[in-house]
Amino acid sequence: MRNLDAHEDYKVDSQKLAGSLRRLAGDFPQPQEEYPAPYGVVGFGEGWWPAELAHLWVPRLMTEGGTQFVLKGGLDLGAAGGAVAAAEASGARVVLVGFGGEVDVPVEPHPLSPYRYLRFLQEATGESETGRRVDEALATLAGQLDTSVPTEDNPAKFFAWNLIERVPVWVVSERYAGLAQALQQSFARIAGSLSIAPPPGSLEFFITALESRHEQGDPLAAVVVGNDEKTKLAVEILETRVDTVLELPEPPAAGLIPEMMAAWYFTAWTAYYLAILFGRDPADAAVLRRLREEA
Amino acid sequence: MRNLDAHEDYKVDSQKLAGSLRRLAGDFPQPQEEYPAPYGVVGFGEGWWPAELAHLWVPRLMTEGGTQFVLKGGLDLGAAGGAVAAAEASGARVVLVGFGGEVDVPVEPHPLSPYRYLRFLQEATGESETGRRVDEALATLAGQLDTSVPTEDNPAKFFAWNLIERVPVWVVSERYAGLAQALQQSFARIAGSLSIAPPPGSLEFFITALESRHEQGDPLAAVVVGNDEKTKLAVEILETRVDTVLELPEPPAAGLIPEMMAAWYFTAWTAYYLAILFGRDPADAAVLRRLREEA
Repeated sequence: MRNLDAHEDYKVDSQKLAGSLRRLAGDFPQPQEEYPAPYGVVGFGEGWWPAELAHLWVPRLMTEGGTQFVLKGGLDLGAAGGAVAAAEASGARVVLVGFGGEVDVPVEPHPLSPYRYLRFLQEATGESETGRRVDEALATLAGQLDTSVPTEDNPAKFFAWNLIERVPVWVVSERYAGLAQALQQSFARIAGSLSIAPPPGSLEFFITALESRHEQGDPLAAVVVGNDEKTKLAVEILETRVDTVLELPEPPAAGLIPEMMAAWYFTAWTAYYLAILFGRDPADAAVLRRLREEA
Repeated sequence: MRNLDAHEDYKVDSQKLAGSLRRLAGDFPQPQEEYPAPYGVVGFGEGWWPAELAHLWVPRLMTEGGTQFVLKGGLDLGAAGGAVAAAEASGARVVLVGFGGEVDVPVEPHPLSPYRYLRFLQEATGESETGRRVDEALATLAGQLDTSVPTEDNPAKFFAWNLIERVPVWVVSERYAGLAQALQQSFARIAGSLSIAPPPGSLEFFITALESRHEQGDPLAAVVVGNDEKTKLAVEILETRVDTVLELPEPPAAGLIPEMMAAWYFTAWTAYYLAILFGRDPADAAVLRRLREEA
């Protein structure tokens, strides 16, 4: 078996994702100009989750005379282009963020791009104070989760070991809308692995979904984010139905967005270590790159 | 193995869910009065999906002087009560739909309740024409999917056989927002079984999530709803990564809501037959009933 504390096992990381993770706090495009308020944000492809986070402080569509940010995250088969045309027709100033020929603010396709989209938006729309708290949280976590921190002191390495041969079920506080799906996406993209995000009404799902089959198939690991009453009840329900329960450490940050970004960042490190344990390159799959060029 | 064409294998169906399925079209609470417009709809617990469907024609919150429908679907630990208080403070007329002591329009907790909430809302808010098309679609499907239709002519029985020992992955056209999660929920509740709804940006997920593990664990079945370009591309990507691809028959109805309700109803029948094949009572789990009394 591979060893997360042995230098040579990280050689599969062809694009040095560990370095990108380590230096993520602060690594985003700074706005080069002032954007007139009011603001609107829509997101496509990779940009869906940063757009959803941004909806905590800006609407989807701006009203007259402001700036419409369009996060053009690819694999959308032209949907972003349609949104641009609609925004332009409404008289908004359109700012395209993402990748492709005609963007105003480039963000490369990358497993960690949600952070970059989000931080650009925070700086561009007067939310840099929250952004600073996000960066503080990520910098604190980077010190705890880095490859140089040995397994016995490194909770992300510990999580990765516990997720081998298990399928994670994301048990996420309802305060963190959209987070379970964002974790499902990042876990797939970095670890190349499947996980389960529950539908709304997750308590009912946790009670019923494992009735017929919980002695068959892949063993499950409940990965818990948050500790409100409902999340604790979900854990109680799941305890007898899953192999193991893993609770994310308290986030080193307060506030919805810093807390969610801390959970996302922790999960990205975990997925990274799981890829190393699988002997898999955590870089983007070649098929994803090819498809991006076509779609 | 059990036989879906043998009468005695249906004895596990203690609450006669087959009868409720067969007679579902038309089986909903009719409004007993006029409700003043404008309307707003919020949904909790079981009511989350009918509320999301209703948002295709009414907003979450009404503006002054209208009616605020609150779908009180249980297991929400008091969140519906908070919504009622907020709506009342805003001066709206509040109509509570669902279960519990103080509701205005009773809808019992039931695996098929999403239909009942939806149809009530359609009749109460001037959308009965769309509702009629939903009922026509369900009545047509009832004739094709009933227990009396033998396996060789019954696509829901065929789907159930193909889902034994496989985990469904819902591959749903983006037109049908929320449907994958609604199918995940109903499948859990009726078949007692796990399935996977992808996050937004589902193409990326389908490409990446099965890289490390597609030769391990439970075999997957892609269950496909819709046939637009993007859904076809997703099927192409999944074909080499899953055990089998099952495409839902064309819905016998046109329009977003009738099409989504047809897919949901088809899936409910499929989940029902899968429960029978597992020898499992498709009625609600006792633990779900107990929890509902507490929460």
